[in-house]
Amino acid sequence: MPHPTDPPRIERYVPVDHAKVDFAGGFWESWTETVRKVTVPSQHRRLDEEGFLEVLDFHLPPAPLVRPIQPSGLSMQHFFDSDFGKWIEAASYTLKSHPDPALEAKIDAIVEKLASGQMRDGYLNSWFIRREPEKRWTNLRDLHEMYSMGHLLEGAVAHFEATGKRRFLEMMIRAVDHIIDTFGPEPGKLRGYDAHEEIEIALVKLYRVTGDERHLGLARFFVDERGRQPSYYDDEARRRGKDPKDYIFEDYSYSQAHMPVREQTRVVGHAVRAMYLFSAMADVAAETGDRTLLSACDRLFDNLTGRQLYVTGGLGPTQANEGFTREYDLPNATAYAETCAAVALAFWGHRMAQIDLDGRFTDHVELALFNGALSGISRDGEHYFYENVLESHGGNRRWKWHYCPCCPTNIARLIASLGSYFYTTRANELAVHLYGANTTEAVLGDTVVKLAQETNYPWGGDVRLSLSPAAPKRFALRLRIPGWCRTASLSMNGETVPLEVGKGYATVIREWRAGDEVCISFDMPVERLYANPEVGEDAGRVALKRGPVVYCVEETDTGFAPQKLRLPADAPLAATFEPELLGGAATLAGEAKKAVEAGWSAALYRTAPPDLEPVAFKAIPYHLWANRAPGGMLVWLVEA
Amino acid sequence: MPHPTDPPRIERYVPVDHAKVDFAGGFWESWTETVRKVTVPSQHRRLDEEGFLEVLDFHLPPAPLVRPIQPSGLSMQHFFDSDFGKWIEAASYTLKSHPDPALEAKIDAIVEKLASGQMRDGYLNSWFIRREPEKRWTNLRDLHEMYSMGHLLEGAVAHFEATGKRRFLEMMIRAVDHIIDTFGPEPGKLRGYDAHEEIEIALVKLYRVTGDERHLGLARFFVDERGRQPSYYDDEARRRGKDPKDYIFEDYSYSQAHMPVREQTRVVGHAVRAMYLFSAMADVAAETGDRTLLSACDRLFDNLTGRQLYVTGGLGPTQANEGFTREYDLPNATAYAETCAAVALAFWGHRMAQIDLDGRFTDHVELALFNGALSGISRDGEHYFYENVLESHGGNRRWKWHYCPCCPTNIARLIASLGSYFYTTRANELAVHLYGANTTEAVLGDTVVKLAQETNYPWGGDVRLSLSPAAPKRFALRLRIPGWCRTASLSMNGETVPLEVGKGYATVIREWRAGDEVCISFDMPVERLYANPEVGEDAGRVALKRGPVVYCVEETDTGFAPQKLRLPADAPLAATFEPELLGGAATLAGEAKKAVEAGWSAALYRTAPPDLEPVAFKAIPYHLWANRAPGGMLVWLVEA
Repeated sequence: MPHPTDPPRIERYVPVDHAKVDFAGGFWESWTETVRKVTVPSQHRRLDEEGFLEVLDFHLPPAPLVRPIQPSGLSMQHFFDSDFGKWIEAASYTLKSHPDPALEAKIDAIVEKLASGQMRDGYLNSWFIRREPEKRWTNLRDLHEMYSMGHLLEGAVAHFEATGKRRFLEMMIRAVDHIIDTFGPEPGKLRGYDAHEEIEIALVKLYRVTGDERHLGLARFFVDERGRQPSYYDDEARRRGKDPKDYIFEDYSYSQAHMPVREQTRVVGHAVRAMYLFSAMADVAAETGDRTLLSACDRLFDNLTGRQLYVTGGLGPTQANEGFTREYDLPNATAYAETCAAVALAFWGHRMAQIDLDGRFTDHVELALFNGALSGISRDGEHYFYENVLESHGGNRRWKWHYCPCCPTNIARLIASLGSYFYTTRANELAVHLYGANTTEAVLGDTVVKLAQETNYPWGGDVRLSLSPAAPKRFALRLRIPGWCRTASLSMNGETVPLEVGKGYATVIREWRAGDEVCISFDMPVERLYANPEVGEDAGRVALKRGPVVYCVEETDTGFAPQKLRLPADAPLAATFEPELLGGAATLAGEAKKAVEAGWSAALYRTAPPDLEPVAFKAIPYHLWANRAPGGMLVWLVEA
Repeated sequence: MPHPTDPPRIERYVPVDHAKVDFAGGFWESWTETVRKVTVPSQHRRLDEEGFLEVLDFHLPPAPLVRPIQPSGLSMQHFFDSDFGKWIEAASYTLKSHPDPALEAKIDAIVEKLASGQMRDGYLNSWFIRREPEKRWTNLRDLHEMYSMGHLLEGAVAHFEATGKRRFLEMMIRAVDHIIDTFGPEPGKLRGYDAHEEIEIALVKLYRVTGDERHLGLARFFVDERGRQPSYYDDEARRRGKDPKDYIFEDYSYSQAHMPVREQTRVVGHAVRAMYLFSAMADVAAETGDRTLLSACDRLFDNLTGRQLYVTGGLGPTQANEGFTREYDLPNATAYAETCAAVALAFWGHRMAQIDLDGRFTDHVELALFNGALSGISRDGEHYFYENVLESHGGNRRWKWHYCPCCPTNIARLIASLGSYFYTTRANELAVHLYGANTTEAVLGDTVVKLAQETNYPWGGDVRLSLSPAAPKRFALRLRIPGWCRTASLSMNGETVPLEVGKGYATVIREWRAGDEVCISFDMPVERLYANPEVGEDAGRVALKRGPVVYCVEETDTGFAPQKLRLPADAPLAATFEPELLGGAATLAGEAKKAVEAGWSAALYRTAPPDLEPVAFKAIPYHLWANRAPGGMLVWLVEA
């Protein structure tokens, strides 16, 4: 229910329908097409082959808990439903633009399996229904019960929006009804919230479909309740007969539940959980107008991007908690930087920019997208990284499947819905956030505006935007000027116009007519980046970036471990487009030095530094690494 | 039994009795006295307070498996007996030079507890006797059964040698008899060997006391059997009804049991296990004359020291297997470098130099001793490190006790017996391996030679050796010329004599008379060390060393994270002795640069490198770190 004293909801910028964005001919075409043609079908095969789908065979006894899938053995996890949810979500996104009856049938089959298990009271979670029905809702702290239902719900919303079929959606509305009956501030209900945030995001998506205030209200309840003291998790543990101190971490910061969310100023705990929470806070803020949530998000965004983010847009440095440690702790070779976390940073930044059109949000969407998220999927579309290290000694390999396969479906659903990240609209405004060749249609009021981007971005910085409203229409075009860009210029129908930039966006207000053309040019030199001295791990090192793309050196190019490279501070570096390289990419070349092994004989240490000899230098986009011969890789190069 | 075709045993250099070496007035005095007065008594208190001693209450039901000792909870381990064994060993070493009836009574009490549990067939292992008697000898791969008995045996030998009491020794001889009845090449016996080497060392020590060839033969059997294919561990697992593939690692290299020991060329697996095995191989080689074992040791020593050793003498870079990974993998902040492993490197090197008087062995004994081993114990003698990192961001703290307290007693037994590492003798030779003020008596043939070292080594490089044989005696004095030393000079009774060095030792042969004086002077400049380019982690970095002592920078001295330091390649550095610093130490001082935070505002990355400003530079011996205010620490400094 809306609170009587609620401020008006925020008129947010609404994303264009991703299915209306066609990337033909541009950078993203091969990625979106690969996800549609390879990734989505192969993930269904994996779910089948690896025995995941069997968890939905409600009529059979449950499978053994350990199955021989990975060398280490796959343990059945409590949260496999989430993988179906995310896979259905990704698959539905592709269906929306490319109908595919066979794929639809596969989704329907999963939905029917889920339907066969749903309890009469609406409860739906295959683990608890089949294995531990008596433990339902007894351990929100550890068992991901609503996390799984949240992903099913996101899948159901996407499925409904893609196909118009209500079956899965209605099932999940019944599940949500059950949660509303169980959780809430009213007497007799549990004041709990899932330790792994996710359902909050799903509930706002549901609300945007149903308009049912109870759906928004539940999301808001979960956000508001989080971190209240005394902790729900302590009470819940005692009800299970357990000592609350018997917990894997010292406090509930692992789940951002150590203090109320509005009081949090530092990004802590499990990285994906944090990003999902903050995304939900932005969503709830947008729908309720509650700007106290936004202020918290603002602070947390600055904390993340100013103190805890890898140069690649990766986040969460350690495996120990799959998340954050101390500020400025950004080790490279042991970086966890989970693919899901970078994907979720894109979710969060995207939501923030829907409320507050500020380039600092979109800059980080773009950073994660081109680097720390995209690195999570191979060029062939069916191999993955969970951890996205910034330095490898050759031991890192992409895998086909994982005992915790959260990342594959997460990167798939991001790429399959990428169009929605490019453009948002609000009243008489059309905002362009990302660059890359595509065509689309946006609707402003009652006017359809056709739009085309011609560009080879990110390999080049020139973008030609053609706008064709169905009828002449006055509106503001807001063009993001990337934070990485030092010099940009703008022309309107061939004439240079001054660039007026506020909070990272340039605005052109005029009556737009069919055929209007805006050209924007972003200077895109090769840049050397240095890390804040607080980041001890990058001391004496330099990273290379061009436009939004972070580069790395791979052993398969150098022929030796890239840790032996010394990049002179003044070495000129030039970008060249290599059409044959992994679908085409701009690489960087120049001259550097190599620390040579000669003269060391068997010594491990000596009093003279290694001799240096000149070598050709080549760097490739970080997101393309580990797609060729295995070997070392380095983002932060030693500066000579 | 000796094999009929055995070569003659090797006439090894035999260590002097450690109890005859008095370190009064020198570097080691405070360490040996602290170990005797603080470490040994406090470890007994810990064993008592923390419930370890209760495992020996054979008349009571076993204690619960998990006890609330560490925040993480202490699990009772299979191998607690080893801690009693090592503690008794260390305590006995101190008893030998400093009789202490109260301490002796504490040892006796433990021995009686052990005696009360020993089985009639000689078997002695508190875990299996009390908890799982039916599992005795069913899992040598995982359960450390002989490892524990080996440490009890080492304790028993030390106890006998210190006190002359035979009780514990006889108990352990009965235990060994039982092992001999159970294991061996004869039909009907098991051809097994413990996955955690240790008992082999103990058996050779026992043999040196008993002269019983069966004791040596069992050690030899275990060494010879190790790594034979098909693997004993596979058979054993099948006998337990388990799949041999159900193992925590891919193969048995974790326990150096992946191939026969003589074929091994690369140091692999668990670092302590490896060092114990190689120590045993050296011991068995010395006693049997089997030089094929020595050749393997030689290769493995070169592999370790040429490719897998930290500059501190630490070894075993990762926690994953408590051991080795790929060659040249020497990460600093995540270094495992277990105290026990550096201690055990000293064991191994010491044994190698008993057989082959080569300075490369003793150099590494000294390196480990002054750095990676000594860093494992605090200046106050009752706080410890398990991991000896080479870089800290302030999170590393010494602890009072540990859920796996193997390191405290290991460093204690090394320091308590340190005298035996200083001198060895063989026929008419007296070898001096280590420097540091002390007085001792060596026996050469039937002549007692009094010997005194006057020196403030390692803080200075001048050593005056006074030799006083009871009667004039011709013998060879072999003086180690440390590998780190570029320039040394020697004088004999005040007259310079030419230094003739072979394999790291200078030799002076003469008829020695009371009052003869040899002065040796080792040039000891501050040295910059660089790592082989194959060590990616140290690229662009420099370590500082003076004499045998490796230095580090601690935040408590700089006032800022040492990762912000840039040490110019030409910065002059001077050593000063600071008598007030943690008992007195030479520190290094000079001028360096600091990467300043000013100008970064909230940025995490930028295109200009950090500004540098001059700062005073100070470095302290690595072994003294983490004894003052907590903070960051760095061994490998960024060179500007």
